[in-house]
Amino acid sequence: MGGTSVLRIAVLGCGRIGRMHAANIAAHPRARLAGVFDVSREAAMEVGAREATTVFETDEDVFASEGVDAVLIASSTSTHADYIEKAVAVGKAILCEKPIDLSLERVDRCARIIGKSSLPIMLGFVRRFDPTHRATRAAIVNGDIGDLHQIVITSRDPAMAPAAYMEVSGGIFRDMTIHDFDMARFLLGEEPETVSAVGSRLVNPPLMERCNDWDTVSVVLTTASGKQCVILNSRQAVYGYDQRVEVFGNKGMAVSENRRTHDSVRFTGEFTSRGAPYLNFFIERYAEAFNAEIGAFVDAVENGTAPEVGFEDGRRALVLAEAAGRSIQEGRPVETSEVI
Amino acid sequence: MGGTSVLRIAVLGCGRIGRMHAANIAAHPRARLAGVFDVSREAAMEVGAREATTVFETDEDVFASEGVDAVLIASSTSTHADYIEKAVAVGKAILCEKPIDLSLERVDRCARIIGKSSLPIMLGFVRRFDPTHRATRAAIVNGDIGDLHQIVITSRDPAMAPAAYMEVSGGIFRDMTIHDFDMARFLLGEEPETVSAVGSRLVNPPLMERCNDWDTVSVVLTTASGKQCVILNSRQAVYGYDQRVEVFGNKGMAVSENRRTHDSVRFTGEFTSRGAPYLNFFIERYAEAFNAEIGAFVDAVENGTAPEVGFEDGRRALVLAEAAGRSIQEGRPVETSEVI
Amino acid sequence: MGGTSVLRIAVLGCGRIGRMHAANIAAHPRARLAGVFDVSREAAMEVGAREATTVFETDEDVFASEGVDAVLIASSTSTHADYIEKAVAVGKAILCEKPIDLSLERVDRCARIIGKSSLPIMLGFVRRFDPTHRATRAAIVNGDIGDLHQIVITSRDPAMAPAAYMEVSGGIFRDMTIHDFDMARFLLGEEPETVSAVGSRLVNPPLMERCNDWDTVSVVLTTASGKQCVILNSRQAVYGYDQRVEVFGNKGMAVSENRRTHDSVRFTGEFTSRGAPYLNFFIERYAEAFNAEIGAFVDAVENGTAPEVGFEDGRRALVLAEAAGRSIQEGRPVETSEVI
Amino acid sequence: MGGTSVLRIAVLGCGRIGRMHAANIAAHPRARLAGVFDVSREAAMEVGAREATTVFETDEDVFASEGVDAVLIASSTSTHADYIEKAVAVGKAILCEKPIDLSLERVDRCARIIGKSSLPIMLGFVRRFDPTHRATRAAIVNGDIGDLHQIVITSRDPAMAPAAYMEVSGGIFRDMTIHDFDMARFLLGEEPETVSAVGSRLVNPPLMERCNDWDTVSVVLTTASGKQCVILNSRQAVYGYDQRVEVFGNKGMAVSENRRTHDSVRFTGEFTSRGAPYLNFFIERYAEAFNAEIGAFVDAVENGTAPEVGFEDGRRALVLAEAAGRSIQEGRPVETSEVI
Repeated sequence: MGGTSVLRIAVLGCGRIGRMHAANIAAHPRARLAGVFDVSREAAMEVGAREATTVFETDEDVFASEGVDAVLIASSTSTHADYIEKAVAVGKAILCEKPIDLSLERVDRCARIIGKSSLPIMLGFVRRFDPTHRATRAAIVNGDIGDLHQIVITSRDPAMAPAAYMEVSGGIFRDMTIHDFDMARFLLGEEPETVSAVGSRLVNPPLMERCNDWDTVSVVLTTASGKQCVILNSRQAVYGYDQRVEVFGNKGMAVSENRRTHDSVRFTGEFTSRGAPYLNFFIERYAEAFNAEIGAFVDAVENGTAPEVGFEDGRRALVLAEAAGRSIQEGRPVETSEVI
Repeated sequence: MGGTSVLRIAVLGCGRIGRMHAANIAAHPRARLAGVFDVSREAAMEVGAREATTVFETDEDVFASEGVDAVLIASSTSTHADYIEKAVAVGKAILCEKPIDLSLERVDRCARIIGKSSLPIMLGFVRRFDPTHRATRAAIVNGDIGDLHQIVITSRDPAMAPAAYMEVSGGIFRDMTIHDFDMARFLLGEEPETVSAVGSRLVNPPLMERCNDWDTVSVVLTTASGKQCVILNSRQAVYGYDQRVEVFGNKGMAVSENRRTHDSVRFTGEFTSRGAPYLNFFIERYAEAFNAEIGAFVDAVENGTAPEVGFEDGRRALVLAEAAGRSIQEGRPVETSEVI
Repeated sequence: MGGTSVLRIAVLGCGRIGRMHAANIAAHPRARLAGVFDVSREAAMEVGAREATTVFETDEDVFASEGVDAVLIASSTSTHADYIEKAVAVGKAILCEKPIDLSLERVDRCARIIGKSSLPIMLGFVRRFDPTHRATRAAIVNGDIGDLHQIVITSRDPAMAPAAYMEVSGGIFRDMTIHDFDMARFLLGEEPETVSAVGSRLVNPPLMERCNDWDTVSVVLTTASGKQCVILNSRQAVYGYDQRVEVFGNKGMAVSENRRTHDSVRFTGEFTSRGAPYLNFFIERYAEAFNAEIGAFVDAVENGTAPEVGFEDGRRALVLAEAAGRSIQEGRPVETSEVI
Repeated sequence: MGGTSVLRIAVLGCGRIGRMHAANIAAHPRARLAGVFDVSREAAMEVGAREATTVFETDEDVFASEGVDAVLIASSTSTHADYIEKAVAVGKAILCEKPIDLSLERVDRCARIIGKSSLPIMLGFVRRFDPTHRATRAAIVNGDIGDLHQIVITSRDPAMAPAAYMEVSGGIFRDMTIHDFDMARFLLGEEPETVSAVGSRLVNPPLMERCNDWDTVSVVLTTASGKQCVILNSRQAVYGYDQRVEVFGNKGMAVSENRRTHDSVRFTGEFTSRGAPYLNFFIERYAEAFNAEIGAFVDAVENGTAPEVGFEDGRRALVLAEAAGRSIQEGRPVETSEVI
């Protein structure tokens, strides 16, 4: 591509995340929104009007279009693997929201189909691009905390999603913890070998029983060299979207703290410090990260380099999710080698 | 465009601030960038290319254009009053960077010329739109801190501007403290009556002597009801752009703290907490505020309401700057009534 | 002294902890230091001189003395159970440093010997008396955080103890985690049923191998109702004594943060916030708690009420330590019922 | 004195501060409480009983006693100068609560009477001994913040003292700000030359009018080299005893923040951080400092060195108080040379 080229990206899926990505692409200096598609024509028309972009009639039109260099897949999870296969078939670069699929078998089939494509395929593990988490990781990579010993990842949603969503979410490990599994791998620099999980039904027991799911989980991962990573999840933190990471090593510790909407603090007779609410929910909290993600994708495509986080990363996170589920079911630590 | 009209704003001046405003207007859902102008054709062309907008050949062309509803004045200070007068003459709404002029006499002449125009004229005291400072003000307005007694405004630049700039800046009170004078008025809810200032040459004494200026000042304002406001300025804070406000009343206190680039914190053997650098400098620190300012301007024009901060606010801040200068020169508290 | 009687307490053991307890008792308004004993006559003489108190020639003299109402047992762990049995035999109240013994069998034998003595026997789990941890617990007890869902206890020593100590410590679970097991029980309000632990040798692998011990552990406890408690330990945190507790429920969260030596903060060109070192090590960090512990003991004896933390609490913590050790050895979650 | 000598200190005055000092002396390893005296025999008897010490019948008995090496003067302000003169006459070292007297004339007369006594006379400006403020000062002395440019001292009481006290307090500058004047001198390392003050009656206007006093003041001090120091006082901060100091220089800033009763923090749906109340009031907040003060006094007497803070420091603070009062009265900056 020439010196001043821009990457023409079409967005598949115009739900909450798709709309945000479309706006980010439109505003990005090195990307152009090449159009949008959604199974709901109405949703697609709305985004098309707001961003003054093409509205594709069918998804096939997107893949067929010569005006599209890359696709951002933000449609429902069940379509992800199909869309990846189609995009690879027509040589369009891919930025795909997590997860690739709820089924590891389907992911593996997808992997076989796309083969050793040199096409950039990037997975939307957006937290890797957050400035705070990146600074925490830099403390490891730069040697500031020395050898890594323990990680604690706390990740709690502000509120349980609607029952309709929970029923098709694939369960907490595939839907929510998957981000933390990826964060663990991002920080550990070494593959987890054992997964030990406990799960409880404390936020909404009837719904959780119906879904055969857990709303409160603690997971412990260990690596061959003895690094330990603890993940704590809850589907409901009434004080807001709780996103913290702690990395501890033999020379120090770095902690990703929560980020607030503003920094005005209050002192009264009843309490002496009151912070602003946390940035709430992922679209606000990770706004900078979602933008940086688009930039990283454009870089990867333009430079022909591997994306920072790719298909295999998506698969590995899913392996950990599967192992965690099995650990609870069987009441024992599970080796990832049993799942892979 | 019917109900969903947008305000077409041209930007006069393509320096650092003008460029930022141009990008903000271009990205704003209810504004459109109607073109740019700068005395440096090259600077204007660069912004025009980046934002894909018209580059006006002369400033007269801007005022003559039918495609321009409003002007954002970000050119050099000496042009502000002229541009305000021209914009009023052709009925274009105005968003003008501070100050209106370095001379109170020129400001008063401008006021007489534009008369009682009903045209929206908004002054760019951007800090009024910062989420943190707004939350601090809300603590006053909502009664959370009760009756206001004392205010402390700390405002320190990360580094001294180049000598060439300092020589024409109009002095620290008109150039830098003017933002704090406006913040004081924004928070006090009452006009300051006395101004008492001390000034020192500590950061760069030779330059300050040459400019007959001060790089380190403390100012105390009082109002008729006895409210006290202290302003602390320095031209150089090596730890970053230091922007804090404390409001204290009979029911509590609210404090605007500095905002950091990220929230990753470190703990090592030498120190046990290390924050990220502050957002640095005003374009980063007040990015949200600059955006909100455009929105407030569009609102005022569309709704035909008075802007939150107008011409008279610009004049009042200048009166305080003049009184502060006189206070140092004469070594005594100065009544604002002596200056007005 | 009539109504204002004081409790006459003798201290057994004049090591670091014994000396501190002796000074605390001497300064306490409702206690009197009735004398000290140590197998090292020299150590006992030194404390005796400093606190101007009796130095007993033998431990038997302590138990025989009519001037002693109660004993504080701060001698080496192997003597604890014997001393408890002797004190019960002569009717002297007991405040015993943790643990009762390294062997659960010995603890159970001690329990049988002392039988259902109505004598106050208090265990020195000092953290229960720390103002910060008490405030965190109050957030649970008062209902401020609603139903408890998750607990995270982080407890890291500033540095590994000398090898000679590590070799007889009884292992990390009995020596260090035992405080956290008691804290877990203090906060959970419900007995843990399953214990799942992982351990690594990362701080000093050769020493840990020689001792068949772990310097880095993560433990997960669960209760019948589904509450989850994660404990993180390390034998070495270079940034200081790291003592944090997080309790999370359906109405909020409370967090015990670390306490610093002072609250002067620095901002420089390299970093923008530098806290003081943490209070370091347990004698400084828990100074208020050690004092409060003496007060609680005096209260229990004077009022004839059960101490806040007693023999059975010491035994329960040891059961959890035993279960954690077995969990690592057998690579599976262990039910506490298997150990009890 | 021999190797293991202790300083025998008698306490004059058994009010709140005297009682605290008596207990501190009694517990201090290198001091002994040699007795107490108060014009209220009952108050003296109570402290005497609690600390098991001599109760002197008259103040003359204290000065006559051979068992008294030093006196701690904590009686009412009007007796301070007399007691200093008497103690000097009999060669007893002195630790005197601030202020020496409300009248500068009386202080100067006292100075003439005691002449150039080599006897240690220490003034009770306790904040100089606070670990947090000492760490802030160390940042100046060690060069960590470079050349000092600006100081901000915020000092607010939790609540207005009773009217009876306010009526004889000598006014806010002599009673309350005097601590801040001393802190300013402690930190500036250079004598203030000009004093500019404003005062308001906002907390209790009728009482303040009756006392011809101010409850809310802002004071600006400047030195010959151009250093600026701002002091902010209020008689009532509903959120607690507010004691902060900020020192700003060309290489950085150090800030004494408030210290809390504990470090348990809460997060709920309404607010996301709630700190504990501040340590409240001076006896709690400066507990460590009061203890360190006794130690420094014992050091000075034993080593025959000048106390860290002496008679002249007491006098200088009073000069600043006088200048501040005159500045408000005359509505102009006052040179300290006009007062001295």
